[in-house]
Amino acid sequence: MIIVIKAGTPVVEIERITLEISRYGIAPEVSLGQQKAVIGLIGDTAEIDTKQIQNISPFIEQVVRIKKPFKRASLEYRNGEHSEVVVPTPNGAVTFGQNHPVVVVAGPCSVENEQMIVETAQVVKATGAQFLRGGAYKPRTSPYAFQGHGESALELLAKAREATGLGIITEVMDAAELELVASVADVIQIGARNMQNFSLLKKVGATGKPVLLKRGLAATIEDWLMSAEYILAAGNPNVILCERGIRTFDKQYTRNTLDISAIPVLRTLTHLPIMIDPSHATGKSEFVQPMAMAAIASGTDSLMIEVHPDPAKALSDGPQSLTLPAFEELMLELGALGKFFGRWAKPNNTYTSAALATQVTARV
Amino acid sequence: MIIVIKAGTPVVEIERITLEISRYGIAPEVSLGQQKAVIGLIGDTAEIDTKQIQNISPFIEQVVRIKKPFKRASLEYRNGEHSEVVVPTPNGAVTFGQNHPVVVVAGPCSVENEQMIVETAQVVKATGAQFLRGGAYKPRTSPYAFQGHGESALELLAKAREATGLGIITEVMDAAELELVASVADVIQIGARNMQNFSLLKKVGATGKPVLLKRGLAATIEDWLMSAEYILAAGNPNVILCERGIRTFDKQYTRNTLDISAIPVLRTLTHLPIMIDPSHATGKSEFVQPMAMAAIASGTDSLMIEVHPDPAKALSDGPQSLTLPAFEELMLELGALGKFFGRWAKPNNTYTSAALATQVTARV
Amino acid sequence: MIIVIKAGTPVVEIERITLEISRYGIAPEVSLGQQKAVIGLIGDTAEIDTKQIQNISPFIEQVVRIKKPFKRASLEYRNGEHSEVVVPTPNGAVTFGQNHPVVVVAGPCSVENEQMIVETAQVVKATGAQFLRGGAYKPRTSPYAFQGHGESALELLAKAREATGLGIITEVMDAAELELVASVADVIQIGARNMQNFSLLKKVGATGKPVLLKRGLAATIEDWLMSAEYILAAGNPNVILCERGIRTFDKQYTRNTLDISAIPVLRTLTHLPIMIDPSHATGKSEFVQPMAMAAIASGTDSLMIEVHPDPAKALSDGPQSLTLPAFEELMLELGALGKFFGRWAKPNNTYTSAALATQVTARV
Amino acid sequence: MIIVIKAGTPVVEIERITLEISRYGIAPEVSLGQQKAVIGLIGDTAEIDTKQIQNISPFIEQVVRIKKPFKRASLEYRNGEHSEVVVPTPNGAVTFGQNHPVVVVAGPCSVENEQMIVETAQVVKATGAQFLRGGAYKPRTSPYAFQGHGESALELLAKAREATGLGIITEVMDAAELELVASVADVIQIGARNMQNFSLLKKVGATGKPVLLKRGLAATIEDWLMSAEYILAAGNPNVILCERGIRTFDKQYTRNTLDISAIPVLRTLTHLPIMIDPSHATGKSEFVQPMAMAAIASGTDSLMIEVHPDPAKALSDGPQSLTLPAFEELMLELGALGKFFGRWAKPNNTYTSAALATQVTARV
Repeated sequence: MIIVIKAGTPVVEIERITLEISRYGIAPEVSLGQQKAVIGLIGDTAEIDTKQIQNISPFIEQVVRIKKPFKRASLEYRNGEHSEVVVPTPNGAVTFGQNHPVVVVAGPCSVENEQMIVETAQVVKATGAQFLRGGAYKPRTSPYAFQGHGESALELLAKAREATGLGIITEVMDAAELELVASVADVIQIGARNMQNFSLLKKVGATGKPVLLKRGLAATIEDWLMSAEYILAAGNPNVILCERGIRTFDKQYTRNTLDISAIPVLRTLTHLPIMIDPSHATGKSEFVQPMAMAAIASGTDSLMIEVHPDPAKALSDGPQSLTLPAFEELMLELGALGKFFGRWAKPNNTYTSAALATQVTARV
Repeated sequence: MIIVIKAGTPVVEIERITLEISRYGIAPEVSLGQQKAVIGLIGDTAEIDTKQIQNISPFIEQVVRIKKPFKRASLEYRNGEHSEVVVPTPNGAVTFGQNHPVVVVAGPCSVENEQMIVETAQVVKATGAQFLRGGAYKPRTSPYAFQGHGESALELLAKAREATGLGIITEVMDAAELELVASVADVIQIGARNMQNFSLLKKVGATGKPVLLKRGLAATIEDWLMSAEYILAAGNPNVILCERGIRTFDKQYTRNTLDISAIPVLRTLTHLPIMIDPSHATGKSEFVQPMAMAAIASGTDSLMIEVHPDPAKALSDGPQSLTLPAFEELMLELGALGKFFGRWAKPNNTYTSAALATQVTARV
Repeated sequence: MIIVIKAGTPVVEIERITLEISRYGIAPEVSLGQQKAVIGLIGDTAEIDTKQIQNISPFIEQVVRIKKPFKRASLEYRNGEHSEVVVPTPNGAVTFGQNHPVVVVAGPCSVENEQMIVETAQVVKATGAQFLRGGAYKPRTSPYAFQGHGESALELLAKAREATGLGIITEVMDAAELELVASVADVIQIGARNMQNFSLLKKVGATGKPVLLKRGLAATIEDWLMSAEYILAAGNPNVILCERGIRTFDKQYTRNTLDISAIPVLRTLTHLPIMIDPSHATGKSEFVQPMAMAAIASGTDSLMIEVHPDPAKALSDGPQSLTLPAFEELMLELGALGKFFGRWAKPNNTYTSAALATQVTARV
Repeated sequence: MIIVIKAGTPVVEIERITLEISRYGIAPEVSLGQQKAVIGLIGDTAEIDTKQIQNISPFIEQVVRIKKPFKRASLEYRNGEHSEVVVPTPNGAVTFGQNHPVVVVAGPCSVENEQMIVETAQVVKATGAQFLRGGAYKPRTSPYAFQGHGESALELLAKAREATGLGIITEVMDAAELELVASVADVIQIGARNMQNFSLLKKVGATGKPVLLKRGLAATIEDWLMSAEYILAAGNPNVILCERGIRTFDKQYTRNTLDISAIPVLRTLTHLPIMIDPSHATGKSEFVQPMAMAAIASGTDSLMIEVHPDPAKALSDGPQSLTLPAFEELMLELGALGKFFGRWAKPNNTYTSAALATQVTARV
């Protein structure tokens, strides 16, 4: 952190500022130029608020943070080594991380009934994806929109998990339901609208369960990493960052703007694994394939895709959901590209592309 | 709501769509043009999701909402009459509303200690302001920043209330603390970052206590009114809307962009009273006066101003806080402008502008 | 400008950087801390590109500009004194500036025919406004929309000027038409879409004529002042800055978001006079009054208002235009508020509020 | 276009509105519901301004455009067939289009001297790229920044063209220089800041030369296509659209946000070929590779990459420029991915990947 002192500041004031700063337990280094003085703060300044420093004196022209305000989330914190989040599932442990195959999470926006969630899970499993997503508690803009089936939906997710061995990712909206959600979910999702619900972040941090942290609609990369920092600082190192589209000036043809460039930017700033959600980002199923391909090409560790057995009858977010056959086709394309980049899991014993090809043909 | 059907859609499909729509309990009216058909939905469509309708058929070109998606928050809901939110305080009931004097809320970002909050409250009271604000639970971007003194700060707010008779406005961040907060607060604040924390909205809706709903950083006017709708639909009609700056492409010189035009826009859409917070919006104390004046000139019902006895030592948000003398001066200016517009409370028996002038002089 | 050098940079590299910097003709001051070195550049750095400095060495961690990149537009350039732009008109010189009455510019979006422009000018004149605006060349999003009557419209503006003595403000879109526009206009307008048409800025800078520089849709305050700097650097000191709404994430209920906070921000950065255009900002005539009032309350030097004798038949921008009687009423309100702030011109001999009241009554 | 009439509108007013509309030469179809009437406009409504229609009557609740406002740029205009832009170059015709290999354009931000531009061109050529870019006239935010060498730079581009046979892409900023630029350029670039310089668009439209139209910083997809429409409507069908990053709320770590999702969106709206410029979008050379890969994976027709023999000494935009060896490596990666998608040109007679590998090795 560097403090620029205004030209003409009395020496006695500079001394006072230096004294005040030393209360923070960091060593200030004053360098007096002919016109301006600069005070450098050496040490761990991540926990210091620049505004607090600015407040010390009206003679302070500017406070410039050189180190990042996030610490545990920073790449430096792990000496440049990227972290892995290992999630145990009935089918075995799945690892999210830069040196691992791309992990695919798929499923409907909302869990609607047993048949649809189990049928979906079976196809998701067959394609080689490792996680089932499905909303039990749904954050909806309107109080009159379907709010999710809640606890009973969690039970259905547990059944789908049992039937397929897939890991489960589902959202928690309220700390009161955290224990319940954590009893079913293998990864707990914090939605975009709760990215700065700091109370909730602290509480999911305390559980130790892997957390999928979606980026807020207008969250800067730094805001987002600071929210991850809340979870990490609460003692939970298992955080996956999910970009799901940001709000910009143009939403005529896509719901949000998918910020693919967040991938390489995050790589230079943080060790945490990255997921991309092209379904919520674009809001239209026809744009999911090109954006999923782009995400793999720019190095994502994971993808979240919305699928639904009958999008036209979905209780929420139908227009952005792929049908099951469309998802199967997409997985073939993603698999080919994933293999090109050396980041696709080998087919396991229950699945071959030939078998899938048959399925796809059968459906058409 | 109007459904535009693609050119060349078979009549049988239009009939199917019409049938599907009638399940929503509203009457569809089909009008067949030479090229395109249009189906109008007559009745209360606020609770219908346009995406659900879009899902019905791939032959639907566009679904256009004519009525607003909010209902209880809409101006039509009260036949064009603006509502009042009446808040009992020890000094008497205070009314927020378009036909009432501008209500001023002032106080520090955080409650730091008894002396500072009581001293601040006394000056706030002396200027004629009606509410004291002060944070007990603080939403901070960084987990390392001061998070508020919590319960003990609530106790100090209660003391300040007792000492001055001012109403208290303070933020709730977690449903677990709602009862506690509600036991001290006369108005419960929902912060910008929790504007779409729908679980919390439902719970403050259930309390019946007046709620100050701050606009989210990137919330559209419609998002904001839909969040108000959550509270109203939960049975609580006492909602005040607070604009506190939106996030735009430029934050070099102000923290956020204060959207003053929200005032007249809201007037045409909703009956709810409006508050403007120029302190959080601009992030700099020097911009508070011109923005507060602008807010009054464009018709705000209320203002929230940050003041602190010693901004240079504030535990949070010092740069945007006014000193107590600066606040007193501001109140004289606001009072003059408020009177020009016929929207300023008459001085009560404990306060005269002469007395204040003396105080201001004494401080200088 | 401050250059932060990465920790562990070899001394010889720091010396090389220092040497490179001295080529810019400014004195570098190196201060070596225990971990990081900082180089301060003392002198006139406005003309130095931070990216150029960043390029010097990969050991440079950050380049921080302390001085502003604009110079002639800066408040410091005039030692904190605000400038005046004096525009000669047939009715006498009109001064735009902080210590002068608010100047009102009004007129239709486009000049349509002689009758409408002269009739409008007469009412504009009668209300005490000093300038007539009217588009001869119109920047339209669509090539199929009305593009303005061009040269013949300029002739009609000249007639309206002759008939009323009002000054004329009209836009130039093409350097080829600059001479022609300058022969009629008292103030040449650069539209929002041409704010960074640097070729055109240099050319209007060379004319010496007063220039109204509208802010671009997504121009930061700094971008805008840098565009003003182009005109100033070309030798033309007569620049007025016009805020006309910025593009944000929400355009459902207003066309743009009027950035009223630009007024106090500009006051701290530049000496140039400021105009606010609430008509283009909001895009709706019903929002013009509250935003114009807000602009006066926060200190604007000037206002631009769209009026049209028959908005329903306007060839462009009808929905945001006031009718002539509505404009007359608005002027009474603005006048009252302007007088409250001591910033309204005394009625001249051709106009009394009584006379206007009669006119307004007559029209109602 | 659909016109929604307010509830309770007198029949005589609906008749009047219908009459007014028929003046536009399109057939209005009235459908009277029990509450609201809807008027559908059948025919070519692209050239009708919705605001003009809105103006017709205060009884009009909403005007909804169903057809797009662009016509010649629309996919429908070519019955769903994507267009090709064929550009003759000394090395033969190069085709931009969806069924053709990805075209690569590379070169420095500015043309600085003969040696650097010719050396760059030779490497660009050797990698298999087809076009050399290089700025002669530079749009710079600051009047004090390097503005390009102008005419002499054009001469150097001509020399580089002669030396390598590459096509030339360079920007025109001023109609006065259009003829000169067109005499050297094979493709004329319109920069982001001039995307709505409608005078210039009309003039490049009149030349018939291929035009590269960069998207404005805050231009919606629709704004952008309307600007293309200006060129097309002027009789020039050879337009290539270039996405180069949009301005959002976050510019801390990348200069702009590259809108990769523009690719699939444009595919559904327009027949025009698409280019992506990851260099200007991100502003940092380290992010160019992942974004270029993402662009290919989501289907771009072309890429523009900044390269410079010595980025540290570049007169402009050094930080985003690749060195020549880095560009050679990038081309190998892009080539591999391009081949995966079947969209990479076969090596021609002057170039083999073995030869390039040798060059790359030699440089390392």
